[in-house]
Amino acid sequence: MPIGVGVVGYGYWGPNLVRNFALFEGAEVIAVCDKDLDRLERAKAAYPYIETLEDYQTLLAHPEVDAVAIATAVATHYDLAKAALQAGKHVLIEKPITDDSRKALELVELAARNERVLLVDHTFTYTGAVNKIRDLVQDGDVGDLLYYDSIRVNLGTFQHDVNVLWDLAVHDLSILLYITDKRPTAVSAQGTRAVPDNPESVAYMSLFFSDDTIAHINVNWLAPVKVRQTLIGGSKKMIVFDDLHPSEKVRVYDKGVEFEHDPERVRQMLVSYRSGDVWIPRVSQEEALQTEVQEFVAAIEGGDTVRSTGRLGVEVVQLLEAATRSLEERGRAIELKVQEA
Amino acid sequence: MPIGVGVVGYGYWGPNLVRNFALFEGAEVIAVCDKDLDRLERAKAAYPYIETLEDYQTLLAHPEVDAVAIATAVATHYDLAKAALQAGKHVLIEKPITDDSRKALELVELAARNERVLLVDHTFTYTGAVNKIRDLVQDGDVGDLLYYDSIRVNLGTFQHDVNVLWDLAVHDLSILLYITDKRPTAVSAQGTRAVPDNPESVAYMSLFFSDDTIAHINVNWLAPVKVRQTLIGGSKKMIVFDDLHPSEKVRVYDKGVEFEHDPERVRQMLVSYRSGDVWIPRVSQEEALQTEVQEFVAAIEGGDTVRSTGRLGVEVVQLLEAATRSLEERGRAIELKVQEA
Amino acid sequence: MPIGVGVVGYGYWGPNLVRNFALFEGAEVIAVCDKDLDRLERAKAAYPYIETLEDYQTLLAHPEVDAVAIATAVATHYDLAKAALQAGKHVLIEKPITDDSRKALELVELAARNERVLLVDHTFTYTGAVNKIRDLVQDGDVGDLLYYDSIRVNLGTFQHDVNVLWDLAVHDLSILLYITDKRPTAVSAQGTRAVPDNPESVAYMSLFFSDDTIAHINVNWLAPVKVRQTLIGGSKKMIVFDDLHPSEKVRVYDKGVEFEHDPERVRQMLVSYRSGDVWIPRVSQEEALQTEVQEFVAAIEGGDTVRSTGRLGVEVVQLLEAATRSLEERGRAIELKVQEA
Amino acid sequence: MPIGVGVVGYGYWGPNLVRNFALFEGAEVIAVCDKDLDRLERAKAAYPYIETLEDYQTLLAHPEVDAVAIATAVATHYDLAKAALQAGKHVLIEKPITDDSRKALELVELAARNERVLLVDHTFTYTGAVNKIRDLVQDGDVGDLLYYDSIRVNLGTFQHDVNVLWDLAVHDLSILLYITDKRPTAVSAQGTRAVPDNPESVAYMSLFFSDDTIAHINVNWLAPVKVRQTLIGGSKKMIVFDDLHPSEKVRVYDKGVEFEHDPERVRQMLVSYRSGDVWIPRVSQEEALQTEVQEFVAAIEGGDTVRSTGRLGVEVVQLLEAATRSLEERGRAIELKVQEA
Repeated sequence: MPIGVGVVGYGYWGPNLVRNFALFEGAEVIAVCDKDLDRLERAKAAYPYIETLEDYQTLLAHPEVDAVAIATAVATHYDLAKAALQAGKHVLIEKPITDDSRKALELVELAARNERVLLVDHTFTYTGAVNKIRDLVQDGDVGDLLYYDSIRVNLGTFQHDVNVLWDLAVHDLSILLYITDKRPTAVSAQGTRAVPDNPESVAYMSLFFSDDTIAHINVNWLAPVKVRQTLIGGSKKMIVFDDLHPSEKVRVYDKGVEFEHDPERVRQMLVSYRSGDVWIPRVSQEEALQTEVQEFVAAIEGGDTVRSTGRLGVEVVQLLEAATRSLEERGRAIELKVQEA
Repeated sequence: MPIGVGVVGYGYWGPNLVRNFALFEGAEVIAVCDKDLDRLERAKAAYPYIETLEDYQTLLAHPEVDAVAIATAVATHYDLAKAALQAGKHVLIEKPITDDSRKALELVELAARNERVLLVDHTFTYTGAVNKIRDLVQDGDVGDLLYYDSIRVNLGTFQHDVNVLWDLAVHDLSILLYITDKRPTAVSAQGTRAVPDNPESVAYMSLFFSDDTIAHINVNWLAPVKVRQTLIGGSKKMIVFDDLHPSEKVRVYDKGVEFEHDPERVRQMLVSYRSGDVWIPRVSQEEALQTEVQEFVAAIEGGDTVRSTGRLGVEVVQLLEAATRSLEERGRAIELKVQEA
Repeated sequence: MPIGVGVVGYGYWGPNLVRNFALFEGAEVIAVCDKDLDRLERAKAAYPYIETLEDYQTLLAHPEVDAVAIATAVATHYDLAKAALQAGKHVLIEKPITDDSRKALELVELAARNERVLLVDHTFTYTGAVNKIRDLVQDGDVGDLLYYDSIRVNLGTFQHDVNVLWDLAVHDLSILLYITDKRPTAVSAQGTRAVPDNPESVAYMSLFFSDDTIAHINVNWLAPVKVRQTLIGGSKKMIVFDDLHPSEKVRVYDKGVEFEHDPERVRQMLVSYRSGDVWIPRVSQEEALQTEVQEFVAAIEGGDTVRSTGRLGVEVVQLLEAATRSLEERGRAIELKVQEA
Repeated sequence: MPIGVGVVGYGYWGPNLVRNFALFEGAEVIAVCDKDLDRLERAKAAYPYIETLEDYQTLLAHPEVDAVAIATAVATHYDLAKAALQAGKHVLIEKPITDDSRKALELVELAARNERVLLVDHTFTYTGAVNKIRDLVQDGDVGDLLYYDSIRVNLGTFQHDVNVLWDLAVHDLSILLYITDKRPTAVSAQGTRAVPDNPESVAYMSLFFSDDTIAHINVNWLAPVKVRQTLIGGSKKMIVFDDLHPSEKVRVYDKGVEFEHDPERVRQMLVSYRSGDVWIPRVSQEEALQTEVQEFVAAIEGGDTVRSTGRLGVEVVQLLEAATRSLEERGRAIELKVQEA
């Protein structure tokens, strides 16, 4: 018996959720719910066999709906997810989980109490490229993680309700927390509005760790070119992740720095560089959202865990909150409670 | 009569100075001075007609030497330049001018008092690319400057005495101060040593201005790939400066954001994007150091000013000092005395 | 009243035709016809309101079908198009028009006699990029056309029935004949099978003109990377057309060669190079097939001509036939009857 | 005792030869010979200890000169090399060896009779990249060689005396003959003058082999961009050689085509594609000319053979002659006497 799914919100992301659930034989889309009648009409035209509902309560009351996928504005996430969990539904929720980490934590605890699956749609954690990078980091191939340095800029999709960190840096934070077990201890962020009376459209975020590792994220809604590039430096190997390359997203450089104490000069290190081959591993090209949808259904059926848990979602929001606070203080470091994964 | 030049320091940069002075008929290299005999031998082999001296005082006393070009370790800049100015010589000094802004200011004042030319070798201010960008900014083509965002990373040239900001960000600071008359009001910087007991090898620096403009500089000695790319966002046009491209270094995007107050929603802006052609202007390919050397000689002869004055050098060092302080405090903003150019 | 359209063939390309006709309010897809029941089922699922037919005669007899769009195997094009034209239908036919230029000519004449529109689906002639290039060539901006040099290679889509020229060079031939009024006078081609008992998978084709212009097309099914790049050299300007670039497909170089007779050396030319700016014009991003479908309907309604006429289709096939003959003779030039456009 | 070398011709390439011989302790540059006094003066300024001679006979008579390096116009190669070999000197000669293959063969035979080393300066055969490719081909890693497909285009260096094949394709021919033992059986070439009364400035050359292998070379003096890219297709692996990349010149694709006879359809092959990792091996960055100069001296001293023998030079010229003939006949295949290496 496939899992019955109701999708709330048929704007930008909702159609992708419907398409991927419809594609997977382990799930069946029972209904789409949206307050906008035009959107419901569009859903009906594309999937004549799916029910379209204006009222969320009707969706929650539907006997065939086992799980709810939420793709609405962030401000509505908490209420919709809470109601769904209380109605005994499993929940897949678009990122970020909520706009408030305490409310997010509440959802996590509610899901745990009710034994429901709560998956946050941090799609990157399901891509072939990010999982290849995670393997390289977790297996020790890159050595000690020295830095994670990402640039994620382009022109467009200006938003009035959140700053650019919540829109773009959210991806890097989920990737960073997914590939390493290290957890940041403090955050510093700077940025500018550029457009008056609007949230920050250009921002920079640095994450400090208990050791010398650093992470840095550069996001910008006002860039003339689209760039999605991450440098990951390790003591043994270094990685360049270019998400825009059609086929060669992950490049592994056999380059590094070696250092040993110079016996003659007590406090001085001998530093030498190593430069070797580059390797571009083939990575899975499967659509990440399809993998995610399958993992969601498997978790519902088998009780397995998912990659992008509610707890990951909470951590991401905590970092965004700290960064937003630092932004307002032009970079003052905001301490975090350390939670090693 | 050509200007007689003495070059101090024949390590990495000195040979370039000698070659460019030798190439220009308005100057004549009289002597090269270095404490390392091997280097002097190398200079002699390449330019048999040039005197080689171990002693700096002998150079300063040389009757044919009108100007001194200093290409030694930063820590020695102040003493060497001061002695030269006191001996009545004009001075061209490698960047950064000194490792201490107060000493740098002292040199500037000494040069002014003695009516000597003091040029700091911020070579980028003499490149065709940077001057084309300056023209576009100064002539109003790019509109209001929204951001300057630079990445300058590669593997190599690890230094034990200064952090990576003093080695790499120094270039961006000189470019930034050269292309715009705006001056930063505060600086925030973060970074990591990566290699224990060494100065920071990865660092990020944000510069705040009195308006919404922001500048950001990403420098790294531990990157697997070499990148020299700067995005410059204006309200009318945007520029991508890729210094590694052999022939197309400056790209001008007719892209921008337009916004007007929405009369119906008081505090809300209407934002719209404009996307047009891209233009890659041809820029002068002349070697920057040759232009610099000619400008130095012209300033000596004609009393003209130079682009990369001692005062520019002071400002750059002040910013590096503030950034280094912020680095130690994990990003706390350090206020600067504003000096509009 | 929208034009009623029947689409024959619902394999790889058919769904794109259905989608684009469905999107355009000037047309209505009445029926889809295919011998494969699975494909018909897929069409029904996506467009429940469209009739699905196994029998082509039933489609032709349908009173609401004004025009037929053919997207079947090339070998069937002639019979299907002939029957449609004889039944008084307008015809849009996938490229190449047929596998035989005499049969293609027959279709052109039949369409003219019956006063029906015959459009060959050379999609590139409807793209923003190719039309921008055509304007630059036709308006004299590039000066005299010196060469057209294209590389169109990738791994995949090996075909058993035609050689790689018929699959890939067909695009360049339609572009070349569309952007210039010049017509080739002879063709030379070379190639190799690489895979035994299969048609040529690597091939090169040179086209000669009555003046010094040359065109060259490099096509390959066995390349490790995908390349779609064309250099177009003119006496005044030069163009690089990179069809894989997401936003900057057409680059115009203000570069060229100037030559004048040297009065002192009778048979010698003075050659000098000019190197100026590069300009990347913004081009229309509209889907080419949508423009094509609109032009097809406008031609039916208003009697206008279309860009990719049956006659263009005939010329393309004549060139492919000549190239295939030359291929068998390892490059011997095959003369063509000149038909200035 | 270092080998005494005389260099003839101090124009474009001569200074590189002098610099590399001077750098190598196994050789000593005794004299530079040129008819142009300005050039001799330039040599003297750079290397005050080297003799400068106007007269070639004086050079040949010099008792300390063991070997002669010829870097003059191609038309003079034969006479200069013949005189040197007759005078008992070893000879290093710029490519192409001569402008006539029979004369080239004469030089090879003369060198053999006199037991002198004759090295043709096909510099690419000494680069790290080409030797890495050669290893991959010779060791069987790439499998059967299916095609060699090179593009070598840029704006500039228009020559009045030879067509573009002799200037640019000469490099690909030496690389092709060096990396594989296969030898072409026929050549087809096409091209255009573009500039009236001048040799061909755009040309294409196809080389046929006794099996299904094909080679193709695209050369152009009138291209707006500089490209140096070669695709090498093998049945097991494929290589992309990009000579302009600063550090990643050789890319090895674990991609290929597999085919087996379909038992059900007698003449039909089953073709399947394999797509795996990409590997960018680190290659030696040593200057090729330095390696060449060392190999030349080692051959003189130890009797070893060199990579770029006179015989290789002869083969290259034979191919250029055949291509030039085919060019005049618009691509007619010119048969070659097969000489498996």
